[in-house]
Amino acid sequence: MTLPVLKPDATIGILGGGQLGRMLALAAARLGLRCHAYAPDTDSCAFQVMRHSTCAAYNDEAALERFADSVDVITYEFENVPAETAAFLAARRPVIPDPKVLATTQDRLAEKSFVSGLGIATAPYAAVASPTDLASAVTAIGVPAVLKTRRLGYDGKGQKMIGVKDDPAAAWSGLRQVPAILEGFVPFEREISVVAARSATGQVECFDVTENEHRDHILKISRAPAAVPGTVATRAREIAVTLAEAFGYVGVLGVEMFLVREGADYSVLVNEIAPRVHNSGHWTLDGCTVSQFEQHIRAVAGWPLACPLRHGRAEMTNLIGTEIESYRQWLDVPGASVHLYGKTEPRPGRKMGHVTRIIPDAAGPQ
Amino acid sequence: MTLPVLKPDATIGILGGGQLGRMLALAAARLGLRCHAYAPDTDSCAFQVMRHSTCAAYNDEAALERFADSVDVITYEFENVPAETAAFLAARRPVIPDPKVLATTQDRLAEKSFVSGLGIATAPYAAVASPTDLASAVTAIGVPAVLKTRRLGYDGKGQKMIGVKDDPAAAWSGLRQVPAILEGFVPFEREISVVAARSATGQVECFDVTENEHRDHILKISRAPAAVPGTVATRAREIAVTLAEAFGYVGVLGVEMFLVREGADYSVLVNEIAPRVHNSGHWTLDGCTVSQFEQHIRAVAGWPLACPLRHGRAEMTNLIGTEIESYRQWLDVPGASVHLYGKTEPRPGRKMGHVTRIIPDAAGPQ
Repeated sequence: MTLPVLKPDATIGILGGGQLGRMLALAAARLGLRCHAYAPDTDSCAFQVMRHSTCAAYNDEAALERFADSVDVITYEFENVPAETAAFLAARRPVIPDPKVLATTQDRLAEKSFVSGLGIATAPYAAVASPTDLASAVTAIGVPAVLKTRRLGYDGKGQKMIGVKDDPAAAWSGLRQVPAILEGFVPFEREISVVAARSATGQVECFDVTENEHRDHILKISRAPAAVPGTVATRAREIAVTLAEAFGYVGVLGVEMFLVREGADYSVLVNEIAPRVHNSGHWTLDGCTVSQFEQHIRAVAGWPLACPLRHGRAEMTNLIGTEIESYRQWLDVPGASVHLYGKTEPRPGRKMGHVTRIIPDAAGPQ
Repeated sequence: MTLPVLKPDATIGILGGGQLGRMLALAAARLGLRCHAYAPDTDSCAFQVMRHSTCAAYNDEAALERFADSVDVITYEFENVPAETAAFLAARRPVIPDPKVLATTQDRLAEKSFVSGLGIATAPYAAVASPTDLASAVTAIGVPAVLKTRRLGYDGKGQKMIGVKDDPAAAWSGLRQVPAILEGFVPFEREISVVAARSATGQVECFDVTENEHRDHILKISRAPAAVPGTVATRAREIAVTLAEAFGYVGVLGVEMFLVREGADYSVLVNEIAPRVHNSGHWTLDGCTVSQFEQHIRAVAGWPLACPLRHGRAEMTNLIGTEIESYRQWLDVPGASVHLYGKTEPRPGRKMGHVTRIIPDAAGPQ
């Protein structure tokens, strides 16, 4: 399908109503574009920053129909958009990125096959559909290893570690015997990510490689640029570009990677692909001349991407659950920008906001 | 009145629905705060970026009452809020900045008296309420001079130049014989401005002095920092701080000044005070770690101001009327950020958007 080039008063539909949708809408508003979010939760925080939104289930065809009629193109802020929803909408309006990307990234097995099919390293993995599969996978891959559901896991949900002393069968039961994948544990030195944007005409722009620190399986801190050798940064960007091009991707995608060091040698393995704006790219809101959110909106609108210039070193800290309360302490830290998502209930593990701190580079912006 | 300290899910009411209100709402959204704009125009561009808004006349007391009930504090994005509207609302919710500031800044004569009463230089001026007043004012001040209505002028509206060959009476008739002020023409070298923020606790933060170029009486280009001697920059900031403190101001104000050079000596004259975020501060959206819009929202919310760090040199260009079409050319200029206001009709003289370009400072951010 040829994608349209939107006029500044066009409307972009967004599936999902969380903070990513909210920040996409704020970026669209800077460019004069309107957004209309569609989400089932009445208190979706994205609804607050736009005039029109739809609160309905993802299988409510009448609501989906009206939503499609009221927008020019449709994008999404989360990767678990039901395939039927995407197909229903794609028959009516351009859905960007193409829903075929979702089919790959919603299934850890399909994703790993796609990545390794491109000659890009991943952790060793094997499909697990039965206790027998699991036993042979454990033999082949060894332990420690992680058993993950093929679908619907995030922030550490839907996965079980299998250590030397663990009974693999317990992990299999723990995940309720759904189709899974066993991944060999990678002794990584650090986790890095690249947020890349690709336009409808094939222009690709990557943000600086970011280094990520997780706590309890949830991203806590991102630092950009990552303190990695230049060759590693180049390889990480190459991987993101290769993936974006292989998908024929339009929009922003986040690629999570492991950096493995063996003596003086480094290798970069792909852990996960997020077909959307990514938490590790939030620093770009304050740290660059263009944010990941604006890049995504530009791509979805059929506009050219901007060339991102970084203002300095950036450190992004997520405010999770009751950590939201600490926003007050950040308000007068020089160079800090506080972002709160307008969520009322600080449930444990819930991303409530983030703070970016820009540390001016002695050498000037790059 | 003691001003409240807002919680992140509080709602700020904004009188006015133009681009300044829109950009204030976008800044509030980053901080988790909600906005509710009140404006008479159905196509107010601020309405697009918030869930709730009120389209009603400024003298519709029932609508004003409901508006006041639905917000925690009220601010404004334009200086010509009717005094009765401000008073009606102030009896119900805190209106910030205090409406008494409006009484001064809505009247060019009161404003000039306020400024000169603080020992700050202005152009020579005289009140004109009759042809006799005008004749003596012309004698006292000389020509060229500018006759301006005391109220309701902006972007060159409501003013008439009186040159050597002009008949002052014609200017008086041209302005429909309303109360006016004659201002001596100031042979300025350049126009500069300072955007300052003051918090409820008296903290004051100024952005860098900006240099402004007008075309047809409308701001066309702002550059920051202004290419002026350090002593001039210091004096300009001092003036803004003095004015903010004299008003007991809470929020952001813009002070337009003339820089007059006599040989090696410079003097700084105040031209106008805008009790609101100011067009010459739009560069701060991309050029600083905090924007003028966020500073205003922080002040209005009772939060501390941020300390602004500048990323580089900034140049802001307004897109006026049909110039909006040029946005496409700006989209791929490195370091440029395009801002479109979501206005559909590109009427002549209408501010439709702006572009900021950040030029990295060789010496690093300051």
